[in-house]
Amino acid sequence: MPLITLTTDFGVRDWFVGTMKGVILGIQPRATVVDITHEIPAGDVRGGAFALAASWHFFPKGTVHVVVVDPGVGSARKAIAVQTAKAVFIGPDNGVLSCALARKKVTAIHALENEAYFLLPVSRTFHGRDVFAPVAAHLSRGVPIRRLGPALKEFVRLDWPGPQKQRGGIVGQVVYIDRFGNAITNLEGGLLRGWERAACKVYARGRLVCPLKTFYQGVAPKTPVALVGSGGFLEIALNGGSAAKTLGLRIGTRVVLRAD
Amino acid sequence: MPLITLTTDFGVRDWFVGTMKGVILGIQPRATVVDITHEIPAGDVRGGAFALAASWHFFPKGTVHVVVVDPGVGSARKAIAVQTAKAVFIGPDNGVLSCALARKKVTAIHALENEAYFLLPVSRTFHGRDVFAPVAAHLSRGVPIRRLGPALKEFVRLDWPGPQKQRGGIVGQVVYIDRFGNAITNLEGGLLRGWERAACKVYARGRLVCPLKTFYQGVAPKTPVALVGSGGFLEIALNGGSAAKTLGLRIGTRVVLRAD
Amino acid sequence: MPLITLTTDFGVRDWFVGTMKGVILGIQPRATVVDITHEIPAGDVRGGAFALAASWHFFPKGTVHVVVVDPGVGSARKAIAVQTAKAVFIGPDNGVLSCALARKKVTAIHALENEAYFLLPVSRTFHGRDVFAPVAAHLSRGVPIRRLGPALKEFVRLDWPGPQKQRGGIVGQVVYIDRFGNAITNLEGGLLRGWERAACKVYARGRLVCPLKTFYQGVAPKTPVALVGSGGFLEIALNGGSAAKTLGLRIGTRVVLRAD
Repeated sequence: MPLITLTTDFGVRDWFVGTMKGVILGIQPRATVVDITHEIPAGDVRGGAFALAASWHFFPKGTVHVVVVDPGVGSARKAIAVQTAKAVFIGPDNGVLSCALARKKVTAIHALENEAYFLLPVSRTFHGRDVFAPVAAHLSRGVPIRRLGPALKEFVRLDWPGPQKQRGGIVGQVVYIDRFGNAITNLEGGLLRGWERAACKVYARGRLVCPLKTFYQGVAPKTPVALVGSGGFLEIALNGGSAAKTLGLRIGTRVVLRAD
Repeated sequence: MPLITLTTDFGVRDWFVGTMKGVILGIQPRATVVDITHEIPAGDVRGGAFALAASWHFFPKGTVHVVVVDPGVGSARKAIAVQTAKAVFIGPDNGVLSCALARKKVTAIHALENEAYFLLPVSRTFHGRDVFAPVAAHLSRGVPIRRLGPALKEFVRLDWPGPQKQRGGIVGQVVYIDRFGNAITNLEGGLLRGWERAACKVYARGRLVCPLKTFYQGVAPKTPVALVGSGGFLEIALNGGSAAKTLGLRIGTRVVLRAD
Repeated sequence: MPLITLTTDFGVRDWFVGTMKGVILGIQPRATVVDITHEIPAGDVRGGAFALAASWHFFPKGTVHVVVVDPGVGSARKAIAVQTAKAVFIGPDNGVLSCALARKKVTAIHALENEAYFLLPVSRTFHGRDVFAPVAAHLSRGVPIRRLGPALKEFVRLDWPGPQKQRGGIVGQVVYIDRFGNAITNLEGGLLRGWERAACKVYARGRLVCPLKTFYQGVAPKTPVALVGSGGFLEIALNGGSAAKTLGLRIGTRVVLRAD
């Protein structure tokens, strides 16, 4: 069964996502289309990149992932398809695919230029419907990626913040805040290997925030806790509330993990 | 593959849409059900009509489109199915289907009265689940439309505002505001044929708003721009923000396009 | 066609629901996955229980219903599957399944402990993805429920308020407020059998609220009305507005129905 996922900033208030699905199903009636989310903040390329990176590897081999967070739609930015052994990724070449593809072996990158796979005439403002949706449907019918347009050597990569080692600790930052108010950092759980977790403490905005735990419960209600979340990254949560709101955490807030 | 779309004002907070899908899949397990939107403001027949009109023609031939924006549910208003060469439309006969059907050749109109295709007993408040969903599923299984109830000659049409020509310009109005704050007017792009676009200016609320462009980029950030949007209508947008909020545009706001 | 429903408090802003679907479709590619709702307030077990109870019986026989409202995720609470003649229910054993199962004949209850049906390693914070989604998919492929883990004799039941008869009336309470602001009570329509409906009056917060009607229309705009809603329970609505907001009704508000 051909599987296509959609990650956009279109919201679900209007008909934008529905029309993308209409276009896909007109070309590939057997497709199962799964929404990752359509609530990426408008134009937030980093948020879209993180949502895709956190979700795509839970889909079966052969899935086509479409990401449309595209503030440059209609401008000269390229549209691309990127193939790996496990999946194909489609989106504007603005970095939105780059977190998912970090450290992955890429087997092909092609610009989307072959109008035979577009919905014509292509509008200037809705490439989700006119370019990305039909290309995804054609790919899921077996059209080879090389038919989509010229091969490229590179795609745009976001300047994603990496963790930094410091004397006695690791410095990272908040990269995503989820609907529960959990502040997800760029500190992967693997970094903590060999640390005595019981002794770890998390600092944010210059203050001690909380100890490191392994799950939400086991701390008093409304008390902050840090843990390695389901996506594999250190996150700061509040038992029964929003850590981001209560602690004033935002995307970019510096977070320090120390074992003192 | 039988395809059914849903456009409602039910929201996604409760179980209403889910139960409609349960009813559909109980009758037609092979159906693919696509949400256009469920966020039409409660009882906003015009908003529902516009969302359907903007989206239905992107779906393949044979799709059944269900629209439930139905402030008169339980009253004497009729429920109808309308057939065209390309699709079937189902909804309350309150005008919500009429924008999609404007200037389309209608081949049959039937009142939904045959209880054999309803979920019985029919509640007084949720015809989406008890009438429209099962009728859509039966139609997608091949039940002929004439079996649904008596033929009708007409359906209710909304008094939709048309553009008016004026000396030196065209007068229209805002008919929809999307989630990005783009204000979509009733002025079709075709009206502008032969105009020197570079010289066009758009006025709203009595003031010059912006020039006409072809896409969102290419104007300074936070600057208004008018363009023919993906649905084929003139819309007023703000590069990187909400045009509606910034310019005070609302549904019904008069918009004038002049070539001075 | 295997059918799986999802009811969660995950929201649709992040990738949580999408990844659950990815996991399901990786195991059972033919599944149709239907969202009941993902907007249960975070951790609101009673709200999730009511949404499931109001919707599940509209799905065909054999449907697998997954409910993840799970404030105790990662703690010692059990995860369970419960079988009835018509459906299988999966969720944390915190009462969230108990409204749907009230007065239903249960044929089997099993703890979810067999890791062969989990996505390994199981995270401490996202059993929706790692336990409930894969178990649902395996069940829909025909895995017998007894393979999931040891049989249980009981599951946790919510202390759900029942109606109380009083001299000259019935006393209940508001148990759910829907997106339109309708306040749904625990008073089933069947309780009113034999009552002269025209003479019924509804009291809330100690004051006369409205008469009992049969549908939303037929009362003046902005006027409260009580009726037996589509789920079979007495609800207080406001023609054209939010009854909950206007009348100050909340979950737990005492409602009295009298035939004076």
